[in-house]
Amino acid sequence: MKTRFIRKTIAYTGVQLSALWAYMNFNVQGNSLVAFCGPCEISFGHMVDAADVKERSRIASRHMLHFIAEHFDLDLEKAVLRQRLLASIVRDVLREWRPKAKVRREGDDLYDGRRKLSISIATLSPVSTLIHFGINIISAGAPVPAKGLADYRIPPRRFALEVMRRYAAEMDSIRAATTKVRGANLEG
Amino acid sequence: MKTRFIRKTIAYTGVQLSALWAYMNFNVQGNSLVAFCGPCEISFGHMVDAADVKERSRIASRHMLHFIAEHFDLDLEKAVLRQRLLASIVRDVLREWRPKAKVRREGDDLYDGRRKLSISIATLSPVSTLIHFGINIISAGAPVPAKGLADYRIPPRRFALEVMRRYAAEMDSIRAATTKVRGANLEG
Amino acid sequence: MKTRFIRKTIAYTGVQLSALWAYMNFNVQGNSLVAFCGPCEISFGHMVDAADVKERSRIASRHMLHFIAEHFDLDLEKAVLRQRLLASIVRDVLREWRPKAKVRREGDDLYDGRRKLSISIATLSPVSTLIHFGINIISAGAPVPAKGLADYRIPPRRFALEVMRRYAAEMDSIRAATTKVRGANLEG
Amino acid sequence: MKTRFIRKTIAYTGVQLSALWAYMNFNVQGNSLVAFCGPCEISFGHMVDAADVKERSRIASRHMLHFIAEHFDLDLEKAVLRQRLLASIVRDVLREWRPKAKVRREGDDLYDGRRKLSISIATLSPVSTLIHFGINIISAGAPVPAKGLADYRIPPRRFALEVMRRYAAEMDSIRAATTKVRGANLEG
Amino acid sequence: MKTRFIRKTIAYTGVQLSALWAYMNFNVQGNSLVAFCGPCEISFGHMVDAADVKERSRIASRHMLHFIAEHFDLDLEKAVLRQRLLASIVRDVLREWRPKAKVRREGDDLYDGRRKLSISIATLSPVSTLIHFGINIISAGAPVPAKGLADYRIPPRRFALEVMRRYAAEMDSIRAATTKVRGANLEG
Amino acid sequence: MKTRFIRKTIAYTGVQLSALWAYMNFNVQGNSLVAFCGPCEISFGHMVDAADVKERSRIASRHMLHFIAEHFDLDLEKAVLRQRLLASIVRDVLREWRPKAKVRREGDDLYDGRRKLSISIATLSPVSTLIHFGINIISAGAPVPAKGLADYRIPPRRFALEVMRRYAAEMDSIRAATTKVRGANLEG
Repeated sequence: MKTRFIRKTIAYTGVQLSALWAYMNFNVQGNSLVAFCGPCEISFGHMVDAADVKERSRIASRHMLHFIAEHFDLDLEKAVLRQRLLASIVRDVLREWRPKAKVRREGDDLYDGRRKLSISIATLSPVSTLIHFGINIISAGAPVPAKGLADYRIPPRRFALEVMRRYAAEMDSIRAATTKVRGANLEG
Repeated sequence: MKTRFIRKTIAYTGVQLSALWAYMNFNVQGNSLVAFCGPCEISFGHMVDAADVKERSRIASRHMLHFIAEHFDLDLEKAVLRQRLLASIVRDVLREWRPKAKVRREGDDLYDGRRKLSISIATLSPVSTLIHFGINIISAGAPVPAKGLADYRIPPRRFALEVMRRYAAEMDSIRAATTKVRGANLEG
Repeated sequence: MKTRFIRKTIAYTGVQLSALWAYMNFNVQGNSLVAFCGPCEISFGHMVDAADVKERSRIASRHMLHFIAEHFDLDLEKAVLRQRLLASIVRDVLREWRPKAKVRREGDDLYDGRRKLSISIATLSPVSTLIHFGINIISAGAPVPAKGLADYRIPPRRFALEVMRRYAAEMDSIRAATTKVRGANLEG
Repeated sequence: MKTRFIRKTIAYTGVQLSALWAYMNFNVQGNSLVAFCGPCEISFGHMVDAADVKERSRIASRHMLHFIAEHFDLDLEKAVLRQRLLASIVRDVLREWRPKAKVRREGDDLYDGRRKLSISIATLSPVSTLIHFGINIISAGAPVPAKGLADYRIPPRRFALEVMRRYAAEMDSIRAATTKVRGANLEG
Repeated sequence: MKTRFIRKTIAYTGVQLSALWAYMNFNVQGNSLVAFCGPCEISFGHMVDAADVKERSRIASRHMLHFIAEHFDLDLEKAVLRQRLLASIVRDVLREWRPKAKVRREGDDLYDGRRKLSISIATLSPVSTLIHFGINIISAGAPVPAKGLADYRIPPRRFALEVMRRYAAEMDSIRAATTKVRGANLEG
Repeated sequence: MKTRFIRKTIAYTGVQLSALWAYMNFNVQGNSLVAFCGPCEISFGHMVDAADVKERSRIASRHMLHFIAEHFDLDLEKAVLRQRLLASIVRDVLREWRPKAKVRREGDDLYDGRRKLSISIATLSPVSTLIHFGINIISAGAPVPAKGLADYRIPPRRFALEVMRRYAAEMDSIRAATTKVRGANLEG
């Protein structure tokens, strides 16, 4: 799969979680993970998490590192499995770079104590599955107690490149793992 | 999904990685994660990793904690995604319980420095997908430099219960996550 | 799966046959069967049966018992299979409660002689499959010769509860049936 | 789909529940429902219901009407859905022909009071799904309280032809129902 | 599957590449291949090829023979495989009828030397997959060097009938081929 | 996907049509197309075409160019679609290299007049789909009127390399075609 870090600042509004967004805007075709930095403010019209819509949640952050993944199948459960692995990889890199940070993953969220670091959603488009994973850079001004990459003195672009490298390697190794097993028997 | 810790010692030979094994032997029906302790020695006839068969690898451990997961679909890629999450959860529990242990996940394997802690495979049966994940209890006598739960003074049964609790909760939350999203649009 | 009888009267317009309707309005998450009573008048914009749209059929009933099922997969043939079983269950309860009523199922419709009791459709949303099954309570004023629960002196709410109980039990037993079979051989 | 009544007596041993059995033996190719009469005695080696294998159940009948359905997809849940509809159709014909018989369906089984009329299983072959549905002709000598077509004075071949006609019509109408709906919206 | 040649001239604008178009307009229900003649001018709003949208391509032809295929599954890769076979069949008929024409297939396009004969796309609707394949009748005025059926003195309607006959036969034989094989073994 | 020409002579017996054959024997992992030359004599035990088994056909050729394709999904219809494209590509190369040869494709077979050039089958393994396509090199001694590459003075290895190059390119372009379309609307 392909990865790309976009250097220009992009405000994440939910519009970016659309089929073929990486292809139409950055010519990245096929399964992909794209990253960029920018503020986050999602309008109700672009919220895909029905729980947020119901509760009229405000989803916002002053400055975030955003990841958008697109995979060309239509299996939402598989998309959520990949989303959890992406969250796990983000946590791994963060803990390896800052061993004192006690960041843990709970489902698709990352926390440091009571402080929330991230937001995420996985969904279906008519032709693909899409994941958004955003991790705060600046934590001040968030609607909940928050922490961000700046608090850990982690440079967002270098961090994004390492996360994308690992996620792409993981997806490749998962695909490879499906091409080297014999089936199991019904009974031993 | 259901979980069960089997108290009696079972030698893992590969026979256990069979469809309906948990149901036929322990009456655990449906998607399940079962754990037990015992030695590991897999015969070539029961090896499902074709790479091991080709290379005539010896897969053995004197005493291991074994996990067998069964999910009733036929999607091998999904099984490998779940296997990676299981490995990630095992690593998480280990690091939370023993913060000084620098255990890392590489694909479906856990390492502490150069020492290998685990073996794992995901495969298809005619009616389900199956995962075996084994983590050494005793590391002495392994065919490669190894480390085990005993080296970290971690009690296997308590460890297994915590891993099973988290894996079941993760699978439930993944399923729930597929039932609360609106689809994404083609374009923003 | 979850079931819920909604006590307030709701006019069925086709709007209710939407993804996540039970979750957004009644907090019923996951595979579900929801029932309520109310009139039925479906506008062309919300008709999902293309045959009705082509023929400019009027679909209406003064008072109906409505069932809305949602299952989180994307297999329309499976949805139609479930729809037929739901129709079969409705017929079963009706005949058990009123043995003299000679109600028969023809595909997804119920008839008593030439009189039609019900309307139904199964369709796909972007994230799920959906079934609407409506059975007349009051038969007067229908566009075709009709019969309804009131004609059989059947109380709608009690009837709905029994249908929902059986459908949920049937779906659970179907799922269970997929987790206890060995595969068949190619040849005997 | 194709249907065929085989006039010669065949002892059902479980061997018949194999991929391509109708094609190899009777040149019936494609999705099919085949019926024949004969005794039933299933050996453990050919039992596909793991519950029966565990409990060492004896599955036998002196004379039965057997149905074997084969559908060329690999979705076991869909096979069980079809099996339930087949059981429902068998029950319908029986009640229409003998209105006084109070036969009811419980899952994939038919009962008349406490007496069991039928046995059934749905399973996967490597290339298809398979259903066996057997209804007693002679009830004497069964391992459980039983009833059979002879008790209702129903001629097996005529009965089989009617069941097969309805099942084939139902499967065709289900397929047709998937080709005339517009998708539902996410929200009304 | 069903085929139909529509005698009236229809301007292809992209609107025709919609779910149930053949059913709603010509009462052709189920998997189908429909053909008609008319000009081609696709607006950006109806372009489904994102590459064309990005590059603001003009897609137009003065007079074309159009084919619209609809298959009721949701597998886009399968749709593209069928599209390539359709292009291959069009080429076959053309070379058999005009052996001197050196027409070759490149992916989903047909060329005679540097001249382009056709345009094509395969896509997903919410309930089906759709293919458009258009072959020029009149080549003059096309935005690229082109050739058309008139240049080969091929009558469009007769040509369409032969292509549709072969495509339908091919799809039927493909389906039949899936119902007569035994599965392969894991190892010889 | 990967391609490989195996220079050593291999007698095709049907054993080669097994899951992971290319990986276990030639270390070719993942979706692949492998070619080799050798005689062909398939025993009944390894015949996967049930029609051949029923009719006790003899499938044999003194010397053939064999292709074995393996794709890691479990969709047999997709495998047959790919098989037809492979046959089409073989025919294309043959006609481009020998324009006077009037070779035509009929389903998965190639003919020159009444003479048969090829045999082919597509099937499922427990973990993949498999295609065998064999084209005669030497036509003498075949059980039916035959023609082979030697009759056309076509060198098998060069021919195989060109076929494999085109098939791999076609599969790559098909995959790419699924990652650049917007979905179609329900109605225009």
